[in-house]
Amino acid sequence: LKVFTGNANPSLALEIVNHIGIPMGDAEFLRFSDGEIRVKLNESVRGADVFVIQPTSAPVNENLMEILIMVDALKRASAKSINVVIPYYGYARQDRKARARDPITAKLVANLIEVAGAHRMISMDLHATQIQGFFDIPVDHLLGVPILADYFLKKNLKDVVVVSPDHGGVVRARKLAERLEAPIAIIDKRRPDANVVEVMNIVGNVEGKVAILIDDIIDTAGTITLAANALKEAGAKEVYAACTHPVLSGPAIERIQNSQIKELVVTNTIQLGEEKKIDKMKILSVAP
Amino acid sequence: LKVFTGNANPSLALEIVNHIGIPMGDAEFLRFSDGEIRVKLNESVRGADVFVIQPTSAPVNENLMEILIMVDALKRASAKSINVVIPYYGYARQDRKARARDPITAKLVANLIEVAGAHRMISMDLHATQIQGFFDIPVDHLLGVPILADYFLKKNLKDVVVVSPDHGGVVRARKLAERLEAPIAIIDKRRPDANVVEVMNIVGNVEGKVAILIDDIIDTAGTITLAANALKEAGAKEVYAACTHPVLSGPAIERIQNSQIKELVVTNTIQLGEEKKIDKMKILSVAP
Ligand SMILES: Nc1ncnc2c1ncn2[C@@H]1O[C@H](COP(=O)(O)O)[C@@H](O)[C@H]1O
Ligand SMILES: Nc1ncnc2c1ncn2[C@@H]1O[C@H](COP(=O)(O)O)[C@@H](O)[C@H]1O
Repeated sequence: LKVFTGNANPSLALEIVNHIGIPMGDAEFLRFSDGEIRVKLNESVRGADVFVIQPTSAPVNENLMEILIMVDALKRASAKSINVVIPYYGYARQDRKARARDPITAKLVANLIEVAGAHRMISMDLHATQIQGFFDIPVDHLLGVPILADYFLKKNLKDVVVVSPDHGGVVRARKLAERLEAPIAIIDKRRPDANVVEVMNIVGNVEGKVAILIDDIIDTAGTITLAANALKEAGAKEVYAACTHPVLSGPAIERIQNSQIKELVVTNTIQLGEEKKIDKMKILSVAP
Repeated sequence: LKVFTGNANPSLALEIVNHIGIPMGDAEFLRFSDGEIRVKLNESVRGADVFVIQPTSAPVNENLMEILIMVDALKRASAKSINVVIPYYGYARQDRKARARDPITAKLVANLIEVAGAHRMISMDLHATQIQGFFDIPVDHLLGVPILADYFLKKNLKDVVVVSPDHGGVVRARKLAERLEAPIAIIDKRRPDANVVEVMNIVGNVEGKVAILIDDIIDTAGTITLAANALKEAGAKEVYAACTHPVLSGPAIERIQNSQIKELVVTNTIQLGEEKKIDKMKILSVAP
């Protein structure tokens, strides 16, 4: 068993090898002067079961190519099995033809990973579970809800309601609600354009309650912060927000800082720069 | 027939459609807030023969992914044939296992292009002609030498010698020399590490002659500028340098400015930023 990491989330990979009690595999992911990726595999992998741990978070194209080139190197170095662990699967939101002539980039990426030579893919909270079916190799799909639920259970909050920020997230909200033995509510919103959000009414009772908003991805944080503010206006006592994948691009941090969100609970599938680790954020580890 | 371009070299693509006398295909290559590529194909391509023109120059991973996602979109929009024109093929120098456990990224990229759905690949001066064999789809391989030769012939230089900066480039130098009816010379160099160059002796007579150094790619310009200076020291009257692909990364421009090179002749397979268009550079178009 050998574990390697690229440049996207070395701290998660390190936590994982420490957990297992093995050393980190010896490989370098460098750049040539013109920006081309240079993978140097410094130890033999012949006959080994190899895991490459790397989310395809931003810069997504760099991080994806690092994985593909590493898989190519491992294949040619006679690894027995090549398992790619992609805790956050980039391009997951491009999973269908939402408009005419759209690409289905989540499927393209699945094809790229397979043709490079991966034998198995392990991921967490795929934006759509259908993405498992984009692969012909086995896909292990792990969930963030148990980790988030454990954290909230330890907090011993009273009178909780779990809130889905949109209709697509109801199944996820219900899973968290079951573990917390809490009711659910749903935000009924319309989105006029990508990254622009409008919040509508709240379906369900939130008055006087501790609301926990849950989503798979928080990206520009438009949806979640407007939802939090709407919940407060509807009489919620406190609003927590939780997600597996803290993409947090563009105005996200500023929006969260200025929002009614009391605490944002995320996992470490995506490695955050120091400038994004704000006081009201709690980062849980998925390493165990 | 429809032609589309990504962000890497729109001016070459525009020159080409103007030559053919058709409008540029209507597609946008945008970015979502988190950096993911968003391709918008704004016109029907059903039943059309489509050409996507884009070199995989820096940023190579961005430009390659733009091509792959566009090909995916074209395939799903029922284009009849998808022809990718990659005037400069990035990762071409990673074309063999130079060291143990090296990836062969040039082959990986070929697989990626095929799995995305391309039917034909058109490229210029592939660093190794073997890269044609990395593809199972047809590859049209065009050469830059005729364009460069025409330019030098018009200059009416007397007493020319064509010089290959290394042993690998002798075939190319001979092709140019034949067209210019000139003898050849070879620089006998050793390279201790990537991007670091040592120049050795000159095989052939250059004294009192006008030397034309030719290469496929000029990247950091270490090889070519040391070669130019060595030619001057060996008594060459003037030194020209020529290449198809002006990668010109890192210290390239400064090295060329400070070198004995009188004029650097390149083609527009790679679109250069204004800061790289120095006075002693001549850019020839490959569009016709
Ligand atoms: N990286 C991205 N950032 C923002 N929006 C995206 C991104 N990728 C895809 N989308 C859009 O998000 C929508 C899919 O989101 P959803 O409805 O939550 O599955 C589609 O309309 C996509 O065009
Ligand atoms: N983008 C790059 N920049 C610099 N050197 C590279 C690059 N890609 C590959 N190489 C190295 O260049 C050598 C191949 O160059 P060549 O001998 O001219 O075919 C190999 O040792 C590669 O490791």
